[in-house]
Amino acid sequence: MSPREDDITGWLGQQRQLSPAEIPIGIGDDMAQIALAQGSSVLITTDMLLDGAHFDVKTAGLKRVGYKSMAASLSDCAAMATIPLAAVVAVGLPRGFSEGELKELHSGVITAADRYDCPLVGGDITSWKGAGRLAVCVSMLSKPGGKPPVRRNGARVGDVICVTGSLGGSGLRKHLDFEPRVKEALKMVRIADLHAMMDISDGLSTDLNRICTQSGVGAWVEASALPISEDAKGRADPLDAALNEGEDFELLFTLSPDQWGKLRRLWSDPTPITEIGRITEIGHMEIRLPDGTVAPLEPGGYEHLMS
Amino acid sequence: MSPREDDITGWLGQQRQLSPAEIPIGIGDDMAQIALAQGSSVLITTDMLLDGAHFDVKTAGLKRVGYKSMAASLSDCAAMATIPLAAVVAVGLPRGFSEGELKELHSGVITAADRYDCPLVGGDITSWKGAGRLAVCVSMLSKPGGKPPVRRNGARVGDVICVTGSLGGSGLRKHLDFEPRVKEALKMVRIADLHAMMDISDGLSTDLNRICTQSGVGAWVEASALPISEDAKGRADPLDAALNEGEDFELLFTLSPDQWGKLRRLWSDPTPITEIGRITEIGHMEIRLPDGTVAPLEPGGYEHLMS
Repeated sequence: MSPREDDITGWLGQQRQLSPAEIPIGIGDDMAQIALAQGSSVLITTDMLLDGAHFDVKTAGLKRVGYKSMAASLSDCAAMATIPLAAVVAVGLPRGFSEGELKELHSGVITAADRYDCPLVGGDITSWKGAGRLAVCVSMLSKPGGKPPVRRNGARVGDVICVTGSLGGSGLRKHLDFEPRVKEALKMVRIADLHAMMDISDGLSTDLNRICTQSGVGAWVEASALPISEDAKGRADPLDAALNEGEDFELLFTLSPDQWGKLRRLWSDPTPITEIGRITEIGHMEIRLPDGTVAPLEPGGYEHLMS
Repeated sequence: MSPREDDITGWLGQQRQLSPAEIPIGIGDDMAQIALAQGSSVLITTDMLLDGAHFDVKTAGLKRVGYKSMAASLSDCAAMATIPLAAVVAVGLPRGFSEGELKELHSGVITAADRYDCPLVGGDITSWKGAGRLAVCVSMLSKPGGKPPVRRNGARVGDVICVTGSLGGSGLRKHLDFEPRVKEALKMVRIADLHAMMDISDGLSTDLNRICTQSGVGAWVEASALPISEDAKGRADPLDAALNEGEDFELLFTLSPDQWGKLRRLWSDPTPITEIGRITEIGHMEIRLPDGTVAPLEPGGYEHLMS
């Protein structure tokens, strides 16, 4: 998703008024929530991954493609602190794709399904008639993890902004074998009240902008505080990689300073959590650079639609 | 899905034992069923439609592509006599696909969503980097319609075999603007107990074979009883079109002669239901031809994977 896609998503969300009683969370979050009988509910996400755009099947190998396809949806479950329930996988296969290749793709899907206790329960197998590259679409269900799903629109002025793990350089390898932060998200909401959360798929600058826009707030980020990954440090501009490269699949969230104090104190998980900035009442985002200057921070994330 | 795809689906279904308490219906039916708290449950289906395979975007137009993509999944809800709840749509767009084109595609999705009371609640927009044609993947949730979902594996020896509507010739136009039999299916299960049901997407011969295989039974079909569509009558071989052309998106179901009598008596819907044969204990399918001969009926449906 890109800024231009955000406009389209906004437009799409305005086309029909969804009943909050039936659809408590609709278009614009990491997952939609559908209310069911007796107060229960289910959440759903869908992700389409394309050969040449989200993976290169020749260099990645089919097993890692299958894993990544599932992991991207699992990361959406994490982004709202929900518990994965089940997945369906639809594939559009290139001509001549063999049964052996399909089984290799499947083995990656199953690796993720087993690791995150999210069974594969169905799917659809189709093939391109002429030229056409591999398309994999995973749709996944989850359920609330004891607390209401954490949305993008709840950030409040004064909130601490945090991220899990490290940022940037994902294109080198992490984007194919990252660990969706499912258990980390569930642990966090057991310890503290989070105001807003999403996963970083299009880069910190773009995704933080989404939280700000949807919450009606601004933000500043401290450049020197960003947990820049080892792989990003090999990039020409490590800070740019951490802000804009995308596909980090880490969690970006905000919470009150109080709750952040509690979370930091009680957090014993090996996955680090880092404070990177604050939510403000100004109408835009800023970055505080190491030389002491403050610059506007623009959403510069990966642009799917324009490319 | 083709016979070869059935083998793969069978293989896929055997890879992991799903817990019946958590996943009452897994791989191999029109939808999978996921159990939730307090006895409630939700069903899910996913369908990937590809330009050049399931539609030709140039001749069909984007609105009809959007409609068909939703309608195919709605037909899966009908196939199990369940009530559509919500849909998510993921698209893989060709380069240069405009916002206007996206809105046209969306208008078809929304037409179906409104008509069948199945709101669009989310999605994913991605684009091919190089050459690549339009891929649309709809995933849809439904809930049981008061009775348990009707599966493929419940056909019993002596059952009457029926279909809704008419068969064959769908490629001419019906495959783009068919009416998924959602309300018909729900009406039928309110009147009678159905033993097995599915929608005809790959042709009667292929899909009846699936019911027979999954139920461990055989069948005969009376050729002269088949409701051959007007469009099929224009085909070189209308019977072959009715048996094998596919994409009819009509319902194929079986029930006891008793229940069939009741259904026939009480059925007042404009959509016709026709008795076409019987479930037998022989291990294969037969067709009774107008000249009095009986021939083996082979699954000859549309072969996605081999083509």
